[in-house]
Amino acid sequence: MNLIEALEWRYACKKMNGNKIPQEKLDTILKAVRLSPSSFGLTPFNVIVVEDQATKEKLLPHCYNQTQVVSASAVLVFAPWKEVTEAHVNEFMQEIIEARGVSADSLTTYAQMILGKVKGSTTEKIFEWSAKQAYIALGFAMAAAATEEVDATPMEGFNPAGVNEVLGLDAKGLSAVCLLPLGYRDAANDFLANAPKVRRSKENLFINS
Amino acid sequence: MNLIEALEWRYACKKMNGNKIPQEKLDTILKAVRLSPSSFGLTPFNVIVVEDQATKEKLLPHCYNQTQVVSASAVLVFAPWKEVTEAHVNEFMQEIIEARGVSADSLTTYAQMILGKVKGSTTEKIFEWSAKQAYIALGFAMAAAATEEVDATPMEGFNPAGVNEVLGLDAKGLSAVCLLPLGYRDAANDFLANAPKVRRSKENLFINS
Repeated sequence: MNLIEALEWRYACKKMNGNKIPQEKLDTILKAVRLSPSSFGLTPFNVIVVEDQATKEKLLPHCYNQTQVVSASAVLVFAPWKEVTEAHVNEFMQEIIEARGVSADSLTTYAQMILGKVKGSTTEKIFEWSAKQAYIALGFAMAAAATEEVDATPMEGFNPAGVNEVLGLDAKGLSAVCLLPLGYRDAANDFLANAPKVRRSKENLFINS
Repeated sequence: MNLIEALEWRYACKKMNGNKIPQEKLDTILKAVRLSPSSFGLTPFNVIVVEDQATKEKLLPHCYNQTQVVSASAVLVFAPWKEVTEAHVNEFMQEIIEARGVSADSLTTYAQMILGKVKGSTTEKIFEWSAKQAYIALGFAMAAAATEEVDATPMEGFNPAGVNEVLGLDAKGLSAVCLLPLGYRDAANDFLANAPKVRRSKENLFINS
């Protein structure tokens, strides 16, 4: 399948069958997450990879009992940083230095630009900005899952406080914004599995200029 | 190239060479945008496809003179709805009815659920939520561009008021959140073209649970 065929094939799976994803497919999906771009390249979020069944069971009541959470092979939890700190920016500069062999001095302006953006805004707005970067990665994860013929269900319908508590995210300076159960569809028991995809027409979605 | 190879190949192109993208490649990228999922399936945004050179020139000063805006073949402008209205939701219900042949009555609860979310929140928060849905589509657009070997530069660094004015977005109930110039790299003049990609390590980005 090419990418477009894969995106036609995918849907927001409502019933999964509990089968495990092969490790190499999960690794491919996580690699796509890692390769996703973000503003400044900062990647201001973490992704929790929940494979432990007991943990999934604990998440379930905080996710309106949507069964994909427990019948998925893995649940990815996209969790932006609650705050972007100077330590985060310094760590990122260190990564650039290591990857590109440039000097710390050559990055001073860049670091100041990022910190300027953060300091010139509110914690809430920066969190929303970080969340948007996580949503790019969510898009990459879904595209990669589809090309691997792995089902995925993006879920915003959950109680963040409950999910954060189960996963200990507060103490890590993180807060969940989206979940992505990964697994295999139980097509016989999923009303959506064979329903035609609903998308706005080209004429409604695009404006030529 | 498979998807991962394509995502390794892509980078935030800083210099484009002005060459046109074949129409079928642009169509593939727009198809990926159209296929991107969104909360409730609502797709609360539009994408402006700017190919007119004079319009790109007018956008340039509002984009800190980043030259990709004028040397791109097309600039996609991701613009969430400023408000989600009852008319939007009704139009979406009509699309479901047409695509799936279901009755209007069977969708009453679904429509109420969407309107309940919108009415239970603020215009600003709903705009941020709509913007996140647009960022999933941005991710899909970048993934598709990469598989088509088309360069793309996600850009948040622009003046929204200026971009909105040039494109007449206010009157359309839209506001730009991200630009994506699409074109071809001018590798000889782009310092980033051959720079190693910087990404957080697996160990830093992922948390196993």
